[in-house]
Amino acid sequence: MSSSRLPQALEKLVSLLARLPGIGERSATRLAFYMLSQPESYARELSGALVELVERVHFCVDCHMVAEGERCTICEDPSRERTTLCVVEGIADLLAFERSGAYHGLYHVLHGVLAPLKGVGPDELRLANLRGRIEALGTSEVIVATSSDVEGEATALYLLRHLAPTGVRVSRIATGVPMGGELEYVDATTLSRALRGRTPLE
Amino acid sequence: MSSSRLPQALEKLVSLLARLPGIGERSATRLAFYMLSQPESYARELSGALVELVERVHFCVDCHMVAEGERCTICEDPSRERTTLCVVEGIADLLAFERSGAYHGLYHVLHGVLAPLKGVGPDELRLANLRGRIEALGTSEVIVATSSDVEGEATALYLLRHLAPTGVRVSRIATGVPMGGELEYVDATTLSRALRGRTPLE
Repeated sequence: MSSSRLPQALEKLVSLLARLPGIGERSATRLAFYMLSQPESYARELSGALVELVERVHFCVDCHMVAEGERCTICEDPSRERTTLCVVEGIADLLAFERSGAYHGLYHVLHGVLAPLKGVGPDELRLANLRGRIEALGTSEVIVATSSDVEGEATALYLLRHLAPTGVRVSRIATGVPMGGELEYVDATTLSRALRGRTPLE
Repeated sequence: MSSSRLPQALEKLVSLLARLPGIGERSATRLAFYMLSQPESYARELSGALVELVERVHFCVDCHMVAEGERCTICEDPSRERTTLCVVEGIADLLAFERSGAYHGLYHVLHGVLAPLKGVGPDELRLANLRGRIEALGTSEVIVATSSDVEGEATALYLLRHLAPTGVRVSRIATGVPMGGELEYVDATTLSRALRGRTPLE
């Protein structure tokens, strides 16, 4: 019913927006109406930004972070420690570390995690150049910062084996009680990991 | 922190997406990354659809529904009853009526409701041609289908006064207990309205 009532150009926009994660047909329709209610310049600017995106934004050939040139600003930043490599699942994770200000080394973005049931094997991750990078950089430590869920853990274990030939030290970020977390509400696995990973109080 | 790390073209896209209703900076970033992870054709198609939107989709000069030509498909549909006019706040409401299949007359889309505190007065609504339409169409009944919240009710009362000079019959959709609604959870105002609006059981 609704579809026959809307102009084709609007239908097309709705169906493209509905492909975005977390946006269903109804939210997509609402977004399209909103765009229509804005001054024409909004949709034109957004349209232009999308073309700019595909034409100017690529992935860094080294760490696979987004980049405007061949390499990203982090890989090209001379002030970063070049002997530590932090492996993350996605760009959002990298940005979370950057926001924390707690890490000063380089990154390697996998763009996914191992998920055999979804058909994601090692070949689907951006792993091809990882060992080569480690050798070229003389990396002393690889910090695996994948999520602490089943897929993230499996990926971490895979990386440990995958990197063994390079002889590099591989570490894993700590699992434990989050800051401000009330013990009462923390799940059993996290608690037992926090206990095992206890550190001397100084 | 995060902003200095992302290419400008990506930042620009994120800031435009973050203007959409219900989408904050973080969701906007996630959407932009998703667009980047898709085949290039996706962003290009979306970009094209946005240009098509502003170039081909307009509002019907009569009822202010979206239209590709001067008039919308409903106003141009000869099978619609031309003597009833249903006034709705927005296009989404019109589509809800169309989906219900319960209404066969014409519409008038206000593109808003009276909200003095937000600076929305009668001049901000698409009211200018309503009385003229009623006269031209020889409308016998105007059904006011604004929401049953304070602003929708105020708009309905305003319309009643605004349309008085035309002598047209003005009705309001019923307020009552929604189908499947459990009386226990229905608010007092709705209940008292449902009671006042009771109809003979036949």
